[in-house]
Amino acid sequence: MNEPEPLSDLARLCVHTMTTKPWSLDQAADAYARAGVKGITVWRDTLAGRDVSRSGEMLRSRGLTIVSLCRGGFFPYADRAGQLRAYEDNRLAIDQAAALGAPLVVLVCGALPGQSLARSRDQIREGIEAVLPHAEANQIRLAIEPLHPMYADSRSAINTLTQANDLALAIGSDYVGVAVDVYHLWWDPALESEIQRAGRAGKLFAYHVCDWKSPTLDLLLDRGLPGEGIIPLRQIRGWVEAAGFRGFNEVEIFSEVHWAADQEAFLARIVHSYRDHV
Amino acid sequence: MNEPEPLSDLARLCVHTMTTKPWSLDQAADAYARAGVKGITVWRDTLAGRDVSRSGEMLRSRGLTIVSLCRGGFFPYADRAGQLRAYEDNRLAIDQAAALGAPLVVLVCGALPGQSLARSRDQIREGIEAVLPHAEANQIRLAIEPLHPMYADSRSAINTLTQANDLALAIGSDYVGVAVDVYHLWWDPALESEIQRAGRAGKLFAYHVCDWKSPTLDLLLDRGLPGEGIIPLRQIRGWVEAAGFRGFNEVEIFSEVHWAADQEAFLARIVHSYRDHV
Repeated sequence: MNEPEPLSDLARLCVHTMTTKPWSLDQAADAYARAGVKGITVWRDTLAGRDVSRSGEMLRSRGLTIVSLCRGGFFPYADRAGQLRAYEDNRLAIDQAAALGAPLVVLVCGALPGQSLARSRDQIREGIEAVLPHAEANQIRLAIEPLHPMYADSRSAINTLTQANDLALAIGSDYVGVAVDVYHLWWDPALESEIQRAGRAGKLFAYHVCDWKSPTLDLLLDRGLPGEGIIPLRQIRGWVEAAGFRGFNEVEIFSEVHWAADQEAFLARIVHSYRDHV
Repeated sequence: MNEPEPLSDLARLCVHTMTTKPWSLDQAADAYARAGVKGITVWRDTLAGRDVSRSGEMLRSRGLTIVSLCRGGFFPYADRAGQLRAYEDNRLAIDQAAALGAPLVVLVCGALPGQSLARSRDQIREGIEAVLPHAEANQIRLAIEPLHPMYADSRSAINTLTQANDLALAIGSDYVGVAVDVYHLWWDPALESEIQRAGRAGKLFAYHVCDWKSPTLDLLLDRGLPGEGIIPLRQIRGWVEAAGFRGFNEVEIFSEVHWAADQEAFLARIVHSYRDHV
């Protein structure tokens, strides 16, 4: 398959607030709008102490489309209290998404160090099914995001798109699908076929981009700007689009290096790298 | 399946020289023998400047079984000169294994940053097939070791046991099999079934253990002693043994923390952790 054309405009560019972590939601909204960014994915930390509904109005008044809320999930639990906390927090995330006007909550499914992955996976399915009626009632979709296997100890027992597709299909609701993040999945020889499978099933809810730096110096906070690493970004976007995806390309970068930089200059680099590399 | 019994003796304990990196081969041999370790896997750096054949005699005179030589591989290349260098180095590794009296060379297959994984995988198969006649002539077996996906950029384009089994079976020689290392593979939901598949095909050539610390602070050099992390070591050994494996349990730990410790004390901890956790 040939690679898709470069993205000539910013109509499908979304930036995660976590990408520009030093900014408040107001600062991010103003700067994204000035830079021509069209979409925003809101991380819940930016909503602390704010009226969520008014925050949604503020974002829309800047011309921004609210793409998703990050994040729900972390369903595995050690005891009944932990289980109830997880469900309550996910219902709260759904309420926040509804108030904000975000159609989607991204799920980082969770894992407990020392608990078997099989048990965590059972608890993840059980947790999604427990909060699903609340999501459906609020017309909020849930995207299962598989995380890189290096996070299987403590962040997610769902580590491949195969697993995420299997889980979404087993649950069988129109409100449950998957999020494809190139950082977590680029290495998987089954990636293209699983993207096709998600597309055919109508489960391809979100697409996240950044890059894998070589070498990578930190397991969590050394992601690269598109073009700084070795992920075949354009090829993977081609697979996602061939599978029918027409949503936003969401730039999600966790990086101590980039957070330490001037965020206006960093945002300009994001826009540039989006045209050149995504 | 029930977990296997704890290992009550050290008959199948092998230690990699890289685990006690500060020691020379002579120091390692003396210390391993004193501690009751029965097997040794020799990393090639310890052979620099030594007569390889006499080194093998020295190890056997200490009562040690030479389990394998680490490591060959790194087959992907950017140009013809790189290809020839890779083949020459792997033929040298086979010669060294034959001189040492090691029946097996472990292959870390390699990857080139920026080259597609598909192309690297083609070059890996091509490389193994190129050196295979030399391995067969010397009666040296080759074990394809899948590496964790966090090493897919620069160390190995073979990242799951599924891929390693596929490759070994496609090559179809009795001299090509796989090495299972829990550090790289513990997270994979297909691990048990792929261990069974390797066993049925007679491809299960080696088994490496250590632990995944939670949190892990470095991508390369923060492996844990068995019991320091969250890998279900006894369960995985059960799978390996149910698949017919009766070889050594090889302790392979890369750790700045443990290398900085007194190596005699560290070796005693290895023996202890082997009985308690492997």
